[in-house]
Amino acid sequence: MSYELHYWPGIQGRGEFVRLALEEAGAAYVDVARGPEDKGGGPANLAKRLGKLEPAPFAPPVLVAGDLVIAQSANILAFIGARHNLTPRQEEGRLLVNQLQLTIADLVDEAHNTHHPVAAGLYYEDQKEAAAKAAEGFREARMPKYLGYFERMLAGAGEAGWVAGDTLTYADTSLFQVVRGLQYAFPKAMAGLADKIPGVIALADRIEQRPRIAAYLASPRRIAFNEQGIFRHYPELDG
Amino acid sequence: MSYELHYWPGIQGRGEFVRLALEEAGAAYVDVARGPEDKGGGPANLAKRLGKLEPAPFAPPVLVAGDLVIAQSANILAFIGARHNLTPRQEEGRLLVNQLQLTIADLVDEAHNTHHPVAAGLYYEDQKEAAAKAAEGFREARMPKYLGYFERMLAGAGEAGWVAGDTLTYADTSLFQVVRGLQYAFPKAMAGLADKIPGVIALADRIEQRPRIAAYLASPRRIAFNEQGIFRHYPELDG
Repeated sequence: MSYELHYWPGIQGRGEFVRLALEEAGAAYVDVARGPEDKGGGPANLAKRLGKLEPAPFAPPVLVAGDLVIAQSANILAFIGARHNLTPRQEEGRLLVNQLQLTIADLVDEAHNTHHPVAAGLYYEDQKEAAAKAAEGFREARMPKYLGYFERMLAGAGEAGWVAGDTLTYADTSLFQVVRGLQYAFPKAMAGLADKIPGVIALADRIEQRPRIAAYLASPRRIAFNEQGIFRHYPELDG
Repeated sequence: MSYELHYWPGIQGRGEFVRLALEEAGAAYVDVARGPEDKGGGPANLAKRLGKLEPAPFAPPVLVAGDLVIAQSANILAFIGARHNLTPRQEEGRLLVNQLQLTIADLVDEAHNTHHPVAAGLYYEDQKEAAAKAAEGFREARMPKYLGYFERMLAGAGEAGWVAGDTLTYADTSLFQVVRGLQYAFPKAMAGLADKIPGVIALADRIEQRPRIAAYLASPRRIAFNEQGIFRHYPELDG
């Protein structure tokens, strides 16, 4: 059975955390909105399709797995993790991986907030002043705090370990995505922080070199970072 | 076995979603930071205690259940739900309840963002102009969109139904909390919206009348809404 992923076709966005887990798992999936329009591709078809799914999602990404319709990235990842061995079997380990994923999701929300602090529905150009202040607080306080937390978690797991312990999980592929996203959006701030988070940087490199992830990143399936997504490179926000 | 809840003692905050589920379940718990200082109460003891927990949480709330240390509200609720029959046994139902809870969490983040759009670390007084714009977008677009979504979910479940279907779940106690919070923070905007979300309003009233919830709300265990929490009544943000 092939999964159907429904997400905006022009951005990595929150859908990318799902794509990375599916790719690492080697799971078959169709990224429906990225296909041709006569096969349901494109944003207009996506909006139509979302309106017909049951139970109704509030927003994409949505994963359709046979009869199951699953929304919310962390929820989708918990499902994929359990099916494809990307989260531990025991409850304790699963709770930790879900907790790490939700913490990553909070960091992602705050990263998005740096360029859209006032309203996601307004243009960046209409909230540049607030964005400059939001980005400053993010670079100087929040980003180091979050990444320092993941650094400590990785240090506890040892050199061959992963963020939740001995086994690679979807929290690792998600952390990879956040590191690359922050390096894209805030290259100067991330360079300045590198010495303090060697384990986080090394984790991202290890994930990037995994055969399925490397193949995915080199393929046209990987959308490039751009200024419509969560991680946007606006040099004036990088200090 | 009694649970230990660790959360800021002066606010409802994100801990309140956990408190409500524990109360509805009739589960024994100690709200540690609200106790006397010599028994680990108070914010200073909370910060110390959080630093010693393993695996380390990024932030409160944290639930300690025997050997398990669980952080992130939605993660804690999934655990409580499974243990205390506040989420379905089947995977399909559980995924939906978790999805609804994560959507509620997104709404909560956006509600908090109305008074702290630029940075959670700055005073409201230092971001009032951005807050006025953020609140306008929230009142006019986001709040109706979220509540309209839950209204449709409730309509699908019928008059005796709950937001995830036939059975009461922690998504219902959470939705109650959000409705009361929004009514506290945005009384005018919520009054203006009431006609469009009768099912949501009725759901909140039904939850409020459940015996254990009613007893909790009348007890000193329930902290009043205030201007340090997520839902703050700043009349200038209510349009």
